[in-house]
Amino acid sequence: MMHFPEHLSKLIQVLRKLPGVGNKSAERFAFHILSWSCEQQEEMADLLLNIKDKLKSCPECGCLIGEKGCFFCSSKTRNQQMICVIANQRDAFAIEETHEYHGVYHVLGGLLSPLSRRGPQMLSIPKLKERIESLQAKEIVIALDSTLEGDATALHLKKELENTPLRISRLAFGLPMGSALDYVDGGTLARAFSSRNQF
Amino acid sequence: MMHFPEHLSKLIQVLRKLPGVGNKSAERFAFHILSWSCEQQEEMADLLLNIKDKLKSCPECGCLIGEKGCFFCSSKTRNQQMICVIANQRDAFAIEETHEYHGVYHVLGGLLSPLSRRGPQMLSIPKLKERIESLQAKEIVIALDSTLEGDATALHLKKELENTPLRISRLAFGLPMGSALDYVDGGTLARAFSSRNQF
Repeated sequence: MMHFPEHLSKLIQVLRKLPGVGNKSAERFAFHILSWSCEQQEEMADLLLNIKDKLKSCPECGCLIGEKGCFFCSSKTRNQQMICVIANQRDAFAIEETHEYHGVYHVLGGLLSPLSRRGPQMLSIPKLKERIESLQAKEIVIALDSTLEGDATALHLKKELENTPLRISRLAFGLPMGSALDYVDGGTLARAFSSRNQF
Repeated sequence: MMHFPEHLSKLIQVLRKLPGVGNKSAERFAFHILSWSCEQQEEMADLLLNIKDKLKSCPECGCLIGEKGCFFCSSKTRNQQMICVIANQRDAFAIEETHEYHGVYHVLGGLLSPLSRRGPQMLSIPKLKERIESLQAKEIVIALDSTLEGDATALHLKKELENTPLRISRLAFGLPMGSALDYVDGGTLARAFSSRNQF
């Protein structure tokens, strides 16, 4: 039986760490990378080596900083008194794409997850409280996943902030756009019912 | 509107080149890599930088060479007079997993594809003819995709080798194992009919 050469096996193992990538996909990726030119392989290697240098997080909100500093914290047109709490940096990009939100963000750095041993002390909650004071924030929008972890984190945040005069809201739950009722799962349908609006 | 920082955009573009990876997946991968430790990022970069050094192809059959030379060409237990023609290096691993084949391989380096401007001159056919002579090969097994490109390449090979006393075979077409008839596509069913065997 022939095995993959050691170097290839290692590359496959590294690629398997990407989210949603199993053995077969990692093998496909590795053989594809093998067929790239030297320049392409070096380009990717360079990008990886310079990530920590080139991509920094804002010390205030935790979002990714571009070439001109933090897009949100340094903005004069954004509402600095409205803070949207997100789990990770990527969520800011997803929310920005909607063009619905014009406040600033706060990256928690994850969600509470007892199974992965991620407790409240690993989330950027003290910094959030500090920013709420320094920005004299009026509203907090909790934009976390609608999963068990997201729910637990949202409840924890609500409790942590309950003695402040802030307005705390959370993203609405309901039917996703374009969905057919008979394809929607029971949990979503139940939440859409209990959150039904005057029409 | 906030855009991805330049470095991140570049990383996403590179990751998009992987097979089957679209914009959304590339973004997920990039943000995931961002969350890796420096060591993990460097490990992947190192693996990429050393690919051409560490992973060489056999000058004879075109398969990947391990630490001890070509697993197939240097083997004394494999039938060197039976050559399995494959499109790329990865196919050898897939065939080896079946434990059904004990000859050697020949990597063509692709399939004929007029749309991608890949003509016969880009395939390793002269080297195949050379090996057929030097190994005094008796059988050629064509193990190419069952696609238009695979069919065209197989026909081209058959024509190129028709004046030799070789036995030329091609992998059988038919129902995949475990398939239900009503889920099999028409083309497969038609080929399974025309290739039906005495039972």
